[in-house]
Amino acid sequence: MTYCIGMLLDQGIVMASDSRTNAGVDNISTFRKVTVFQRPRDRVFVLMAAGNLAASQAVVNLLREAIAANGTGQEERSPNLFDSATMFDAARCVGECIREVHRRDADSLQRFGLEFNVSFLLGGQIAGEPLRLFNIYPAANFIEATADTSYFQIGEFKYGKPILDRVITRQSSLEEAAKCALISMDSTIRSNLSVGPPVDLVLVRNHDLRVSHHRVIDAEDPYFRQIRNGWGDALRKAFKDLPDPDLAG
Amino acid sequence: MTYCIGMLLDQGIVMASDSRTNAGVDNISTFRKVTVFQRPRDRVFVLMAAGNLAASQAVVNLLREAIAANGTGQEERSPNLFDSATMFDAARCVGECIREVHRRDADSLQRFGLEFNVSFLLGGQIAGEPLRLFNIYPAANFIEATADTSYFQIGEFKYGKPILDRVITRQSSLEEAAKCALISMDSTIRSNLSVGPPVDLVLVRNHDLRVSHHRVIDAEDPYFRQIRNGWGDALRKAFKDLPDPDLAG
Repeated sequence: MTYCIGMLLDQGIVMASDSRTNAGVDNISTFRKVTVFQRPRDRVFVLMAAGNLAASQAVVNLLREAIAANGTGQEERSPNLFDSATMFDAARCVGECIREVHRRDADSLQRFGLEFNVSFLLGGQIAGEPLRLFNIYPAANFIEATADTSYFQIGEFKYGKPILDRVITRQSSLEEAAKCALISMDSTIRSNLSVGPPVDLVLVRNHDLRVSHHRVIDAEDPYFRQIRNGWGDALRKAFKDLPDPDLAG
Repeated sequence: MTYCIGMLLDQGIVMASDSRTNAGVDNISTFRKVTVFQRPRDRVFVLMAAGNLAASQAVVNLLREAIAANGTGQEERSPNLFDSATMFDAARCVGECIREVHRRDADSLQRFGLEFNVSFLLGGQIAGEPLRLFNIYPAANFIEATADTSYFQIGEFKYGKPILDRVITRQSSLEEAAKCALISMDSTIRSNLSVGPPVDLVLVRNHDLRVSHHRVIDAEDPYFRQIRNGWGDALRKAFKDLPDPDLAG
């Protein structure tokens, strides 16, 4: 399992992903789920993946190879993110790679009783465009965050959703969003064994046109520990401070 | 969908269920999901259901009919909860009724592409026994809360789980447990349209051998409103009070 969050705010994009991959509970390992493609001052893409690891790695490889083949005279078989005119084009480009992997693998997976299942969050900016955030489904169709939407989640999203709903708006600061992403991630890690650290926290400030901040946060990270303990303590205190019900009669 | 919680504490049992039933998002209605069977000073059973409403109603009817037929000379076709020697027997009795409904309906459901899906929380006490709490699955097998377990959930459980994990232990008071159940319910109601009020809150104090308190809490209930607003405000304050991360560099 996996948990990824992408938040689209007035000031920038904040994205976070866990690093746990499991094939059954007896086969747990650590794989980072974030990939950055950037050409500073021109464009930046942050891609986070959930679902079948073989599929998401294949998609990322196709995207990388297309960029590497560009200008070398080699045939470009997959569409190139660096040729995308808009973020919408970039999302279609990721979608094309998903479809290519699906064509190659889906039937074979099905013969083993497995479903083709991979999804992505794509956040970023191309010079001349605003910051944009997409949620790309296994069928390669996708939705974009609009003025009413400040975040997308993929993977094991339920445990960490209530705090996002209560706190995050488009006007939230990047610091608030990063803090909230870590609290949401912590709630998920506590409740689901298949989601685990380290956490990749990636930030793209509006108009930076590159990754502004990327931090790999493990369980021992002092700030993450402070947030985890502080949040737990604050919840217990808030709970204690609320009035008890009258259970007489 | 449904959300039910059952908590087994040193002082008693606290159970809560929502009242929303939906057959698709365009067909939402209100059905209470709690049934009480009691013979004061001898035994009390609180049953909460999740899953297919036709199945859970059928199970409850079989249980009711068996009790009604008792002593009338009518043939008792289903096992009678009031004949159970122990809570373990009572859980088997509920399981027998689930199997009876499964025998009658499962094949027919399958022909319509539907899965037989019903589960129950059964909490209560029989004179001479401690309070006990069971989680009964669609296959009619079941698990019992042990010393390490203070709660079970059925239905849409994920949104409301983090607060339970942080607050509830066997030593929690009944007031704390009821408060926590309502907060957990509120988080779920906020995040899932298919879970909704009124909320049935049922309490059985240890050795009372009857329902000690049963309250139907709608969205306008003053205490529930106080808890909902107070919890939201406290979360936002706790969030604000935590230190922001340093996102420089």
